[in-house]
Amino acid sequence: MRALVTGGAGFIGSHLIDRLISRGDEVVVLDNLSSGKIEFIQTHIDSGSVVLHEGDITNFDDVHGAMEGIDCVFHLAANPDIRLGTKITDTDLKQGTIATYNIVESMRRCEVKKIVFASSSVVYGENAPMPTPENHGPCMPISLYGASKQAGEGLISSWVGTFGLQAWIFRFANIIGHRGTHGVIFDFIHKLKADPSRLEVLGNGLQEKSYMEVGDCVDGILHVMENSNESLNLFNLGSHDTASVSRIAEIVIEETNCKDAKIEYTGGDRGWAGDIPRAMLGIDKMLSTGYDVRYNSEDAIRHTAKCLIEEIGL
Amino acid sequence: MRALVTGGAGFIGSHLIDRLISRGDEVVVLDNLSSGKIEFIQTHIDSGSVVLHEGDITNFDDVHGAMEGIDCVFHLAANPDIRLGTKITDTDLKQGTIATYNIVESMRRCEVKKIVFASSSVVYGENAPMPTPENHGPCMPISLYGASKQAGEGLISSWVGTFGLQAWIFRFANIIGHRGTHGVIFDFIHKLKADPSRLEVLGNGLQEKSYMEVGDCVDGILHVMENSNESLNLFNLGSHDTASVSRIAEIVIEETNCKDAKIEYTGGDRGWAGDIPRAMLGIDKMLSTGYDVRYNSEDAIRHTAKCLIEEIGL
Repeated sequence: MRALVTGGAGFIGSHLIDRLISRGDEVVVLDNLSSGKIEFIQTHIDSGSVVLHEGDITNFDDVHGAMEGIDCVFHLAANPDIRLGTKITDTDLKQGTIATYNIVESMRRCEVKKIVFASSSVVYGENAPMPTPENHGPCMPISLYGASKQAGEGLISSWVGTFGLQAWIFRFANIIGHRGTHGVIFDFIHKLKADPSRLEVLGNGLQEKSYMEVGDCVDGILHVMENSNESLNLFNLGSHDTASVSRIAEIVIEETNCKDAKIEYTGGDRGWAGDIPRAMLGIDKMLSTGYDVRYNSEDAIRHTAKCLIEEIGL
Repeated sequence: MRALVTGGAGFIGSHLIDRLISRGDEVVVLDNLSSGKIEFIQTHIDSGSVVLHEGDITNFDDVHGAMEGIDCVFHLAANPDIRLGTKITDTDLKQGTIATYNIVESMRRCEVKKIVFASSSVVYGENAPMPTPENHGPCMPISLYGASKQAGEGLISSWVGTFGLQAWIFRFANIIGHRGTHGVIFDFIHKLKADPSRLEVLGNGLQEKSYMEVGDCVDGILHVMENSNESLNLFNLGSHDTASVSRIAEIVIEETNCKDAKIEYTGGDRGWAGDIPRAMLGIDKMLSTGYDVRYNSEDAIRHTAKCLIEEIGL
């Protein structure tokens, strides 16, 4: 199979590509290298199994130039910084919604029939039951990032209904692990690197979410694809439990060995406007395909902390 | 109250404005007059109670130029032709999604806090239970129009969650009546006017949907607004039953007195790719506010046929 991976030089994309290459797929990457890093996929580029198109998903011609001869698109590229929407309001519209339009429209013109889309638990919005099943409704996202993921889902689903696309939409828990380029663990390590005596935590620390290790995530994507074949396949991907931000802070302090770091909470029940304080995905549908995770939330967090401390250097 | 009505010269917009003016509101209209007609609101313009901004919701400056001093936005403007998405794929993206971004972003900058949004039953997608309640999920629209309405809902809900907007989102059944500028009854009358001996019907005629008279729709909007006050209020608006396309064809033939017209079905279970064959909204939540419709589907259809025959001239 010839796969196009948008955001292929990024965190989740580069792990997915490791799997695709190891099973013998050809891979084209479209990435603007804004948060992705070429070194994540350099060995595959050097071996000739990955072709990198350095380009931007917000530019239709860049997308279209990478689409020729593709069998399946893994559309992972997006603005990775959910908080940014509180300050700049058109980033998610452009890099999320309009970019996804570019992808499906280019697929229609090139007659590419299969797409995998990285959506998110944040489409469910606030006050959803925990764990949240795929058929929860109404989905009312409270962040601009969440709105763009929902819009992307809708675009894809309308291309399925109108133009015969086949789609796998995955709503991810918080994906963490090796090569992470953003997120709470990444932020905490950088903060402790700058000042090992204190750790500022946004909110009151009681925010509680489900975390999934990135290897579990990409294995889950490929397993579910092999075990579902509707025209539109919608799956939550997550682990079995949650962890609080306070607990993450403790684990990162342990792993960085910054034993004297004082945790300082900024207060309030959420990290920022549009942050969802509590989230846990229902994963029964994922489990029903025969797939299960290796890591639950705390183990994934500790594993990630170890990886990122090595990568960031402390 | 000073209201901005986008699409205010259009079908639903002009009826809403009649109500707003009669209760004493000031009204600003933003309309590009592409499907709306200035004569629908001419008397209000002449009396000085409506100010018309002829402009386009896809242009941020046009939107922003109409936003100053507004208390509540009624965002009704959109591409009215659902079928168009099968041929031109960026119309709903621009006139639906990006336009709604323009609206909420302009509201944020001008500190306008209340919005009413005309969404649609088509956001539920295919195979939803009938009648479909507001909490049905997942919503997977099959038309590009439906995708844009869902994206608009998500944008508004994220502005509620991030920037403190208050919103009323209404998912409309098929709204019909006086001043209709599109839709199945409108099309049938035009077809019979061109050739009274035959009536082509898209699909097999078994498509079955719920119809709501436009006066019932705008009365419902205003009633629900007065009787709900969450930060985000989501309501289906529809009638108690459905009518089939075959039945609509019969009623239009009766009302036009084209007794010899032969109904010719193009075949297939739907009118076009992305059409939903069967749809009926659950209206318990609407009814719980104390509001009920005057017309059910067949009565609304017959009333509409009479109105449109007079307007179109036969």
